Amino acid sequence: MSIPPSPVRLPAGVRDFLPRAAARRRSIAERLLAAFEAWGYARIVTPVFECADVLERGLGADARATAIRFVEPGTGEVVALRPDFTPQVARLAATRLADVEGALRLCYEGAVHRMTAPGRGPLAPREVLQAGVELIGGAADAVAAADAEALAVAAAALGAIDPGPVPIDVGHVAPARWVLGAVGDARPALIAALARKDKAAVARAVAAAPADVAAAAVALVGLWGPVDDVVARARALTWPADVTVALAELEAAVAAAHALAPGARFTADLGELRGFDYYTGLRFAGYLHGAGDAVLRGGRYDGLVGRYGRPARAIGFAIDIEAVAHAQDGRLVAAPLASPGVLIAIADRRAGAAIAAAVRAAGLRAAVDLGAGAAAARLAYAAETGWTHVLAIAPTDDGAVLTAVADGAARPIATAAIAQAAAGDAAALLAELPAAIRRA
Amino acid sequence: MSIPPSPVRLPAGVRDFLPRAAARRRSIAERLLAAFEAWGYARIVTPVFECADVLERGLGADARATAIRFVEPGTGEVVALRPDFTPQVARLAATRLADVEGALRLCYEGAVHRMTAPGRGPLAPREVLQAGVELIGGAADAVAAADAEALAVAAAALGAIDPGPVPIDVGHVAPARWVLGAVGDARPALIAALARKDKAAVARAVAAAPADVAAAAVALVGLWGPVDDVVARARALTWPADVTVALAELEAAVAAAHALAPGARFTADLGELRGFDYYTGLRFAGYLHGAGDAVLRGGRYDGLVGRYGRPARAIGFAIDIEAVAHAQDGRLVAAPLASPGVLIAIADRRAGAAIAAAVRAAGLRAAVDLGAGAAAARLAYAAETGWTHVLAIAPTDDGAVLTAVADGAARPIATAAIAQAAAGDAAALLAELPAAIRRA
Repeated sequence: MSIPPSPVRLPAGVRDFLPRAAARRRSIAERLLAAFEAWGYARIVTPVFECADVLERGLGADARATAIRFVEPGTGEVVALRPDFTPQVARLAATRLADVEGALRLCYEGAVHRMTAPGRGPLAPREVLQAGVELIGGAADAVAAADAEALAVAAAALGAIDPGPVPIDVGHVAPARWVLGAVGDARPALIAALARKDKAAVARAVAAAPADVAAAAVALVGLWGPVDDVVARARALTWPADVTVALAELEAAVAAAHALAPGARFTADLGELRGFDYYTGLRFAGYLHGAGDAVLRGGRYDGLVGRYGRPARAIGFAIDIEAVAHAQDGRLVAAPLASPGVLIAIADRRAGAAIAAAVRAAGLRAAVDLGAGAAAARLAYAAETGWTHVLAIAPTDDGAVLTAVADGAARPIATAAIAQAAAGDAAALLAELPAAIRRA
Repeated sequence: MSIPPSPVRLPAGVRDFLPRAAARRRSIAERLLAAFEAWGYARIVTPVFECADVLERGLGADARATAIRFVEPGTGEVVALRPDFTPQVARLAATRLADVEGALRLCYEGAVHRMTAPGRGPLAPREVLQAGVELIGGAADAVAAADAEALAVAAAALGAIDPGPVPIDVGHVAPARWVLGAVGDARPALIAALARKDKAAVARAVAAAPADVAAAAVALVGLWGPVDDVVARARALTWPADVTVALAELEAAVAAAHALAPGARFTADLGELRGFDYYTGLRFAGYLHGAGDAVLRGGRYDGLVGRYGRPARAIGFAIDIEAVAHAQDGRLVAAPLASPGVLIAIADRRAGAAIAAAVRAAGLRAAVDLGAGAAAARLAYAAETGWTHVLAIAPTDDGAVLTAVADGAARPIATAAIAQAAAGDAAALLAELPAAIRRA
């Protein structure tokens, strides 16, 4: 086989995670999933790609533009890599789970793929590891309870990552939706101005609007901060009835969630427009100390499940696992410790394999060193490959030494214990190991 | 937004896993990964797609034909969904991990995508969930130890799924490679005949070959069965030196692996050609009771890592998680039991949420029922959505009832315990719960 001349490279926007980075991401995902499951969310697994037209029913206009489409060569059908799990969960809720009479609590974890334009550059694909939940359906009078639960689960999930106070910023699409619907042709300019939180530009955009709309639009720019304060300032303005109801919904959801998640620090922002074409009620974002932007985004999307044939209310959120890992890196949070593991360096590798089996039977990781070289080099190798200890056994009866990788501390191990372990009886060796291992 | 008229459907070859099926597959994957990790294999995470030319360097001709390629819209580069993890692990071993002086033990779990032709039908994509290991590099004298370790890890991994004896079929490419290399133009006919284990067709294909080659080719069809027997029968034939060495390698690897994995039942098959263009030494397949075909396939592929710029010996295997799950389904192996979880049915959902928080604090799953309807319907809902118990709390002080979903057994719960839990103090409720919960 001739080797092509092109370099070994990865496509833009995707990456590998070596063991330490992979372990951190697995640890984050498992903590999040454990939190979701404690709240009754059952994990589902969905395919990496779907028929593009089916997937896109469940995407907002923004997300639809980010989907990576291609022609599936077997059938010639246009498929798309999922840019989001929510359409897949909505599809399942409306089809295979349509008969369940009550709320569906579902969670997921995995990779999604999107075209993004980082820093206004050209579009490039990006692989994102996500974990999230969707709470779909339920009785008509359970909406407030569902809103509060979604906020509380968000707080619990981020609280499982960071024991400090969890900042969660809560908004509602109703105020901005009313304003944007009342300004006619000025809508694009107003959207741009609100996105920049540019008060003067907002004022210019609504110059021709009715006075109450213009006042509300200008106020939206500043309607962020403590929840009580934001709601009080919003109530001082003139709104239609549905916005007044929305403000009460927001206030009630935060109050109920706060009782369930006392560790959360809720704030409000009524001027946030991201995901505006997608959400239909409450929307929220969660933060971690050390992350520049939100690591969690979610909201209510009552219009989505119905696009798959069975209308249902729904609320959910997704957490960007990579953003969480970056926040931890920035704060020097320790990577998850490797469990104790003994690398056995011995010339007679078959005897070493028997000793390794005995160590594994005691619940520790173990393997035989398959490399060559000096003991010092083996310690470096052990550190690089995740072992906590090296058990070096001399070729003759000169004895054995157990060295801790972390600090190089070495202690002799009785030859008799090694011989018995190699013969299949590890009791004597195990009697010597635990004290040293527990120092790991 | 107008709803397109096309039906809600999935592409051919991919599927969703609802909670029960997803839990089974997660349970299988986690058992396999725990076995890999006990043997010192560190988990890595690699991207779902790669540059097609880079990925394809590490695929055999068969696998290359199965890759699903598409043009990545951002860069216009041709990428391919990974049909196998091995090229990705080989790429990492030859690049970012090239400086590690010793064996790399790496493992992975996730989805791969392939074009397959089920039942000789047209090509269709298939999403396969895999878990596997690669053991790459190590000293020149460690090949035998690595072969034995790979077989033993395979046995340990399948042993973690099924406590019964684990059948593992071991072969080596050397005998068939010699025969195929010595028959000239008859090679395609011989490959087809050997793949069908058709002795008469093999004899016809090698009619013009030298006598020792023809005898070996015909013998290959029957060279399967107990390892000692197969090796003894093979040794009675005339082989070049490298095949004699290969037979000794196979025998030694099985003997060493058997000492490490006494639960494995090793057999040999020297006529198996699958993956012949890919493997360079030992090859093996693992079976589960109830699965029609192998659920694990692997072998030595010493030529692969070098295609990424740093030659290294390597051996590894992958397990088809879906095939394992099907084997379990066929044998009615119980799905993993849901952990105890209490669904709280109460009109005052905010009070219910406080009670649920108290139950979660005790380590149980809990949520408030967001549905509506009669108690009997709620029990059906609880069963469908994975709860083990329903705590129904009457709207007035008429008391509460805890019902086990499995058998409908109900017991009253003191009103005072409920009231205290709703007020934030769950001690009295928890004192009543455990006995009932532990019956789950």
